[in-house]
Amino acid sequence: MIVTFTDFGWQGSYIGQMEAVLRMRAPQVQVVHLQKDAPTWNPRAAACLLAHLVGPFPAGTVFLCVVDPGVGTARRPIILQTPKAWWVGPDNGLMMPAARAQGLLGAWMIPYPETAPSVSFHGRDLFAPAAAGLARGEDPAGDPIALASLVGRDWSPALREVIYVDAYGNLVTGIPGGDMPPSARIGLKGHRIPYARVFGEARPGEPFWYVNSMGLVEVAIRCASAASRLHAGTGTGVVVEGLPGGDADDKGA
Amino acid sequence: MIVTFTDFGWQGSYIGQMEAVLRMRAPQVQVVHLQKDAPTWNPRAAACLLAHLVGPFPAGTVFLCVVDPGVGTARRPIILQTPKAWWVGPDNGLMMPAARAQGLLGAWMIPYPETAPSVSFHGRDLFAPAAAGLARGEDPAGDPIALASLVGRDWSPALREVIYVDAYGNLVTGIPGGDMPPSARIGLKGHRIPYARVFGEARPGEPFWYVNSMGLVEVAIRCASAASRLHAGTGTGVVVEGLPGGDADDKGA
Amino acid sequence: MIVTFTDFGWQGSYIGQMEAVLRMRAPQVQVVHLQKDAPTWNPRAAACLLAHLVGPFPAGTVFLCVVDPGVGTARRPIILQTPKAWWVGPDNGLMMPAARAQGLLGAWMIPYPETAPSVSFHGRDLFAPAAAGLARGEDPAGDPIALASLVGRDWSPALREVIYVDAYGNLVTGIPGGDMPPSARIGLKGHRIPYARVFGEARPGEPFWYVNSMGLVEVAIRCASAASRLHAGTGTGVVVEGLPGGDADDKGA
Repeated sequence: MIVTFTDFGWQGSYIGQMEAVLRMRAPQVQVVHLQKDAPTWNPRAAACLLAHLVGPFPAGTVFLCVVDPGVGTARRPIILQTPKAWWVGPDNGLMMPAARAQGLLGAWMIPYPETAPSVSFHGRDLFAPAAAGLARGEDPAGDPIALASLVGRDWSPALREVIYVDAYGNLVTGIPGGDMPPSARIGLKGHRIPYARVFGEARPGEPFWYVNSMGLVEVAIRCASAASRLHAGTGTGVVVEGLPGGDADDKGA
Repeated sequence: MIVTFTDFGWQGSYIGQMEAVLRMRAPQVQVVHLQKDAPTWNPRAAACLLAHLVGPFPAGTVFLCVVDPGVGTARRPIILQTPKAWWVGPDNGLMMPAARAQGLLGAWMIPYPETAPSVSFHGRDLFAPAAAGLARGEDPAGDPIALASLVGRDWSPALREVIYVDAYGNLVTGIPGGDMPPSARIGLKGHRIPYARVFGEARPGEPFWYVNSMGLVEVAIRCASAASRLHAGTGTGVVVEGLPGGDADDKGA
Repeated sequence: MIVTFTDFGWQGSYIGQMEAVLRMRAPQVQVVHLQKDAPTWNPRAAACLLAHLVGPFPAGTVFLCVVDPGVGTARRPIILQTPKAWWVGPDNGLMMPAARAQGLLGAWMIPYPETAPSVSFHGRDLFAPAAAGLARGEDPAGDPIALASLVGRDWSPALREVIYVDAYGNLVTGIPGGDMPPSARIGLKGHRIPYARVFGEARPGEPFWYVNSMGLVEVAIRCASAASRLHAGTGTGVVVEGLPGGDADDKGA
């Protein structure tokens, strides 16, 4: 299975052109577009999001990840190997929190093809052909890279920011929800936001936080857009208040 | 074939995560996303829309339907069986007009898996696994439910409202167009809107109604957005004027 | 492989309904949605875009193309044959620049099915069944058409306009970039816009042009929307300044 994670947007022909390359070169392989609107021009937020999305996939999955503001510059196109998966994308940190959580086994440069790729669409011209090859069972074609040289090798999978705004205007933060007590409050744009277990238990019009289906703290308003009401978006800072035995600075990112 | 009908939006990773579960658990089965933007938080309008979309599918289709504002509360996750299809989703009426039109044969609870599902994403954690099982030919795993207990068992497939606004700003109503004479007018937001057979026969800038490709009355303006011009959206009331042998109240919803 | 190119938008059920027909009638065939948001109601701009997207597909591809403001009127539903591909869509010029670039071998009318199609959704009712038949290896079912009678038979694959605005607000023009020297400037809405090779080499906030991954001149602003900043959109006129040995009028469209 090839799983794509990109910031191309659902508009235009970018996803379609990339998928066509995958299906031409690996016709027997399933392709799932996990997300088309990862945070644009923001590999750090996208890396945090990706790390919380890649748990349940089967062994051998090839993750094709393209949030790549440096396309056409000297940043390296790379392949990473973990015990469960292959990872194909730019060397800008995007894949590192997710891959490190599984355990990094190796890294390779992706060699440029004989036909020079476009300078702006390596998703189609470099990364998709590499992903298709791995999905067909081929070994990485390029030279190995030292793991210590990879960008983002010290990035945490947690981040004290809004990392994604969903279609309902809910604010997904980079804060793992597993250890958060219901008594904790989320500070965001001057609001101190309380917990609710589910939407049905929140009061209409009042912001609340809950642990979303990715295991992340998410700020929402029932039947309304938290992004609009709280004037927040990707990159808005978030603090945690009321953690037992510590304050916000002890936790997460 | 598994056919999805959800209000997740095309944004984010909801569709991608759900599709990944389907493809992992039923890799030989085709998946078609029929609609990703069913009316949000509105099972009644969504039910009307769905009832007019499910005619041409082959026998054995599994409809995976998620418009589910009650996710995480006590509403039941269910499977319905009709002579032509399986239906998987919440017991909130969403699937009833469509399933009743085919003839309801049975209903089952979907049992919770050993790993507790998320409280907010039953599409991925409960409904997709159930749909994949049915698509592989398995029987429903849970306990039968009395048909008389199902929510929406008295819902009509017709509704005197705008039930969807499409990408062009056209206003899809819940009024079946089959019996509407060309002389009838649609009353909406104080306008009395005349008929045109096709867009090409309507006057630019003037609202008209026609019978759309789902067989529903749709209000449109050639080369413009009827939603913007008429200040209308999902839930806007609609009346029918000039029906032979009766008035609006005799017909439909 | 069936490749779709439509202006249906990613919203609603249009793509889903059409895909369902393809998968029911040609279950062994791959389907790739190349673009869902081709320029609406604008076959000329869409034709230019399509001509620059169809290079790398394998022989035997069926292109299913629907930008069809004349649906339901007398315009003809047609099939075109080229050495590498089949083309299915309306006879309004949409497919002509792309097909002529490959070499037109023949054209056929698509006969109406026994069940009358809807008047507004020939993508589902006429074009998808025809595309599925060709993808299964069948011959065109309808009567041949004289090539000289086809709409758009004199359309160039180049156009001195903005033909698409992408998700980032970048302005894709219909001007092929292959022969453009870096010294040339693009005139658009009173601006004289210089060249940059890649986004990383452009100055933030300053518009620049570059040759995009389709080989077309594209006007962009790093980390901002050129469409918003320059008040431009599909149809905005574009001129080329500073071509060696000629002026703008010598080139392209």
